[in-house]
Amino acid sequence: MPLRILATGGTFDKRYDPVTGELGFGESHLPSIIERARLTDDVTLQVVMLIDSRDMQDEHLEQVLDACRAAPESRLVVVHGTDTMVETAAVLARAALPKTIVLTGAMVPFSVDDSDASFNLGAAVAFARTLEHGVWVAMNGVARPWSDVHKNRAAGIFESLG
Amino acid sequence: MPLRILATGGTFDKRYDPVTGELGFGESHLPSIIERARLTDDVTLQVVMLIDSRDMQDEHLEQVLDACRAAPESRLVVVHGTDTMVETAAVLARAALPKTIVLTGAMVPFSVDDSDASFNLGAAVAFARTLEHGVWVAMNGVARPWSDVHKNRAAGIFESLG
Amino acid sequence: MPLRILATGGTFDKRYDPVTGELGFGESHLPSIIERARLTDDVTLQVVMLIDSRDMQDEHLEQVLDACRAAPESRLVVVHGTDTMVETAAVLARAALPKTIVLTGAMVPFSVDDSDASFNLGAAVAFARTLEHGVWVAMNGVARPWSDVHKNRAAGIFESLG
Amino acid sequence: MPLRILATGGTFDKRYDPVTGELGFGESHLPSIIERARLTDDVTLQVVMLIDSRDMQDEHLEQVLDACRAAPESRLVVVHGTDTMVETAAVLARAALPKTIVLTGAMVPFSVDDSDASFNLGAAVAFARTLEHGVWVAMNGVARPWSDVHKNRAAGIFESLG
Repeated sequence: MPLRILATGGTFDKRYDPVTGELGFGESHLPSIIERARLTDDVTLQVVMLIDSRDMQDEHLEQVLDACRAAPESRLVVVHGTDTMVETAAVLARAALPKTIVLTGAMVPFSVDDSDASFNLGAAVAFARTLEHGVWVAMNGVARPWSDVHKNRAAGIFESLG
Repeated sequence: MPLRILATGGTFDKRYDPVTGELGFGESHLPSIIERARLTDDVTLQVVMLIDSRDMQDEHLEQVLDACRAAPESRLVVVHGTDTMVETAAVLARAALPKTIVLTGAMVPFSVDDSDASFNLGAAVAFARTLEHGVWVAMNGVARPWSDVHKNRAAGIFESLG
Repeated sequence: MPLRILATGGTFDKRYDPVTGELGFGESHLPSIIERARLTDDVTLQVVMLIDSRDMQDEHLEQVLDACRAAPESRLVVVHGTDTMVETAAVLARAALPKTIVLTGAMVPFSVDDSDASFNLGAAVAFARTLEHGVWVAMNGVARPWSDVHKNRAAGIFESLG
Repeated sequence: MPLRILATGGTFDKRYDPVTGELGFGESHLPSIIERARLTDDVTLQVVMLIDSRDMQDEHLEQVLDACRAAPESRLVVVHGTDTMVETAAVLARAALPKTIVLTGAMVPFSVDDSDASFNLGAAVAFARTLEHGVWVAMNGVARPWSDVHKNRAAGIFESLG
């Protein structure tokens, strides 16, 4: 069951830049996580972009959608910033692709102590292999339909709109 | 959808002991992983034992089975050493509990660089939430039925019996 | 030979805040580093403040100087932000205390991958035990007198004014 | 002031081998520590051997001594297993080289959480730059003459013979 992981950046992939003292982007950490988890050959990584999700413009959303549409696999994980994850999910959902698309991200960068990045990627890969077609947001070990989830910024968790 | 994580030890939870220079067991790392992943309230952790899976005797298998049977939840993750994971899965399967039981572990301890522990736990939690009743082994981002999986020791991965 | 470590913050002690997405300050990491290095009983830690060195005002410099003066030990390590480390060193030097004062810091926070924090603290402790009275800046494994050192921002290293 | 770091292995440089489940040796971690600490050009790394210090035979001690004697630098750090660090120090001392030789190691491998390796290397580099000729053991932030130090195995620290 082939699966594609699409990297778009977000907190998940941020790195500390010792010259500026800020967190930014360099190489993606996903190859390292995939290697240590010894993912099987049917997983393909594609770095679409590496940006902060608050900087995502319409053209970036278009690029992500194009990558999802063009992927030969019907099971996709999109690694994304948490701030606009739900908005991107909505855009992907409107395209109604016959695919299972699972968005995930991290509250703490992979490169920082106590990160949730590896756990979240593991969960997203598993949800992408098992959930039916549609667009899902997987955070905190739970997958929710894109239309029933929001980020509780103060608590740092994703919740059902309930 | 309440879920229970049962810790039994294994490489996943090993720690380095500076006095003996060996890897052994102390406190489980699972509370720390659960906290950083900000798992929701419906996840309960239960430390059944913390031992090397090569030291598992019939009485230990009985304890794991009892914990699975006694759990009020029907969705369970069992963190287990990789060497005898499939044997324990077989024991659990014979009990034919009306539950989804997902066994996982790690090839590299959580406390060591480049560990696969967090990724594997994330995947196991997601598989436990989505797969049908039965006993599954989740490693390398894939869940397989207990009766169709073995550990390829040389390669350090789990494979279908094919 | 009793020694005191004075924490003032700086990159060394920054932590990622998942709510704001910024690096800031919480608890100091120094107790953890001291514990893992198993420093002997003659080392005392004092958290004077935990701030970004670019936010240091005259009153903060006064506090650091007061702490150095009040310390019963004649051998002191000051953990400090790198951006204004040399300026603070100059203030401490003007007081001409009969003490060995070694300032150090980090280019990458202790809580981030590939940090230089532990190495730098180890070097600073050793220099504080061995160098003569005066104010020194210890970075990159070298101690230099406060009056002959500057931070090369582009290269991320400290250099002699040469 | 040129300085040479001689790697001989020991706990400091051990890595977890996922196939055997044991700690052993692969590449040295020293290049990575040197890079993150941004050591200046006058520091040279030489990997003499990478073995457990309990496996050191006379021929290994001879190799370490030869490397110290052949080094063009008069300031040397020897990274060594802690179990026989003092014995090797005694061998080096008998050669009475006109050099400052500082032995250090780690109680917890660099590749494992809560390691003291980086701190100890930082301290050893600083002591090697400042102490007079002779053979020293630098652990727990203190350098002691080789003839006045032993490892307290139960406590996991080095102490003066007092």
